[in-house]
Formats: sequence, structure tokens, C-alpha cells
Amino acid sequence: MSFGRPRGERADAARNRERLLQVAREMIAEDGTDRVTMDGLAERAGLGKGTVFRRFGSRAGIFVALLDDDERALQQRVLSGPPPLGPGADPVQRLVAFGRERIAFLFDHHAVARAALDTGQPVPARDRTLSGLHIHMLLREARRAGRLDAADLDSLALQLTAALEGPLLLYVTTAEPGRGAARTPEPLAESWQMLVERVCSPAASTTR
Amino acid sequence: MSFGRPRGERADAARNRERLLQVAREMIAEDGTDRVTMDGLAERAGLGKGTVFRRFGSRAGIFVALLDDDERALQQRVLSGPPPLGPGADPVQRLVAFGRERIAFLFDHHAVARAALDTGQPVPARDRTLSGLHIHMLLREARRAGRLDAADLDSLALQLTAALEGPLLLYVTTAEPGRGAARTPEPLAESWQMLVERVCSPAASTTR
Repeated sequence: MSFGRPRGERADAARNRERLLQVAREMIAEDGTDRVTMDGLAERAGLGKGTVFRRFGSRAGIFVALLDDDERALQQRVLSGPPPLGPGADPVQRLVAFGRERIAFLFDHHAVARAALDTGQPVPARDRTLSGLHIHMLLREARRAGRLDAADLDSLALQLTAALEGPLLLYVTTAEPGRGAARTPEPLAESWQMLVERVCSPAASTTR
Repeated sequence: MSFGRPRGERADAARNRERLLQVAREMIAEDGTDRVTMDGLAERAGLGKGTVFRRFGSRAGIFVALLDDDERALQQRVLSGPPPLGPGADPVQRLVAFGRERIAFLFDHHAVARAALDTGQPVPARDRTLSGLHIHMLLREARRAGRLDAADLDSLALQLTAALEGPLLLYVTTAEPGRGAARTPEPLAESWQMLVERVCSPAASTTR
């Protein structure tokens, strides 16, 4: 999993990480994501280039770490917050709720989420993301509850994760008027609900 | 639209483009996509760096041009080949057929398709791709035929385009054993068919 802090991290390494993330955020706030480089970040943070490289591995790794940091609050609400985002609700309702929150999150963190994609790597590094894991888990629950008869849950989970994340990571911008769906999260959120409700059958008896 | 050659291109510019694409293909065949840079391509093609920049705009632009070239055969079959990929079939059958072909295509052109993503740009440049346009058109047809009652066709088209392209662009590799869906195109193709058939209603009267 790519999110969460590595365990057993020594105190100075943890301090360096916090410092680097803070400086990266300042640089993004001033000039956007484009100007953030490994060298520039090291210089401004007053740390060696080797430290930045060990910590993040690549330029995209800086943004992965920032995104992980930002995702933590959403992750907590998913894991232990009130339903339907948190545990306890019908899995299809949870899929809908998660999609709404995630689309809003990607709107709010659009530039960093895009910069975190490392397309220079032929093998994607982030095949186990928050969305990927959570959608897979909820589809498994939906199947157990007789709401879904997908033959290949892995493929469907990948496709629904891409349907949720892909519009904002690949196709639309949040900043400028574009092709309809881009200016506010609401149309994508509505459409996500429709998509999920069609893929899964209605609950046999609804108590909510 | 990003595919197809620019019209009115002068003969020498067209020659340079062909030469650059050919050299880029050689470089990829030898060393993979990682080693292809603007400078390296210019040097090996014996052309100025300015020529490469004018032609492709960015490193990712080289791969966009290669992908456009490779997509042309699929595009022709979609536009004027036999049904159900070509015109004349039921729109939902065409969505299924297109998805199958496109997934196979992305398996065959995986490294180039990933390298064509320009995530350094906060605003995605390719919001009107072959898949995006074709899926939008077929969903419009399906809605006209009473097979789909989506309120927001733009959002649904973006999400289904992402469901089709996203697994291979964002999450899975074609090369290594991974999370189930990655090793062959078939599980993704099967799952795509199920997804599309659930989103659209069955045909009122089927003649095929």
C-alpha cells in the first residue's frame, strides 16, 4: 500500500520527510506543481539531493507522498467514520458515498493527484490505492450479499476505480470551462451513483 | 482532436515528422520508452532540437504522435469497417466490440500509451481521444434508441472511457503477473462487456 507512513522510520528521517513535504507545499502554493523538482526541493529545504531521492525515489514520488498525507483524513472517515462513508451501511450505498467524497477530494487536490502519476514507469507503481482497495472490498461485500454476480471481481474493481479516478486524472480539468463535467464535482458524482447502482442489483429488502 | 495528421503540412515538415517517428520507434525497440528524450531524438535523427520541439511540443508529445499513428488502423475499422466494430450494428454491441479492440490495442501499445500521458500539465491536453469521442457517440445513439436514460451523458461518457482506458493507463501492467486482470486482455474485455450491458438496457427487439 502506498499510503501511510513507513513504520520504524527513524526520528530524523521522519523530520526530514515532514520538512520536505512542507517545503513542497510552499513551492506548489507559490508556483504550482510544475516548478517542483528534486533538486529545487533539496536546495530550498536545505537538505542533500540524496536525502530527497531516498525519501521519494522520483519526482512523482514527492506528489505521491503529498497525496498520501492529504488522503489520510478521508481514509480515517472511510475506516471508522459514520455510515454510509464509514462501516455499517449497505455496500452499494458505501460505494456511492465513497465516490462522492473521492470525486470532491480529487477536485480539491487535482494538480497534486495528476503530478503523482508516474507515467515514466512502464509498470505502474500505485496499483493498490485507497480507491482501488476500498472499491474492491465493497464489491466483494456486494457479491457476498447477492447484489453482484461479476465473474471477475478484480477486473470490475479496476474498471470502477478507473471510472471514479480516471475522469479527473486523465481527461478533465477542474479549472476551466470544458466538456460539461469538469467545472463542478456534482455531475460526475451523480453519474457515479447511477453507474454503481446499475452494476449492482437493488437490495432485496432495504432498511434505510 | 489529437489524432490524424495536421492538414496543410508542408512536405519537408511531413518528412521530418516521419523521420522523427521512425527514429523514436527504433529507440523504443532498443531501449524502451524511458530513454527517448527530445535531445536524444533530435541528435539521432540529425535534426535540430527546435524542429523536435515545434513538431511535438513536449516529450509526451512524441508518444502522442506515435500512438496516433498506431491508432489509425483501429480508427479506420471503427469508422468504415464491418459491424459490430464498424457502423451498422446496435450501439451497445458496438460499445462492446470497441472495448474489446481497444483493450487489445492498449495491451499491444502499453508503454507508448502510458508515456503519452502528460501529467506535468495541470490541464490534460487529450480530452478528446479516439475512445472518448467514440464512446460518447455510441452512448448518444443508445440514448436515442431508448437504451439509456443517463441524465448527464458527458459525465457517463468520461467515466466509461476511463473504465476502458484507465486500468491499463493507470493501474495494471501487461508484462508481469499482478492483480489478476493484468496478464491477458480477456478478463478486462469480459468485464467491460458486463459493465456496458448493465449500464444500457437490453434491446426491445433484437434482430441480430
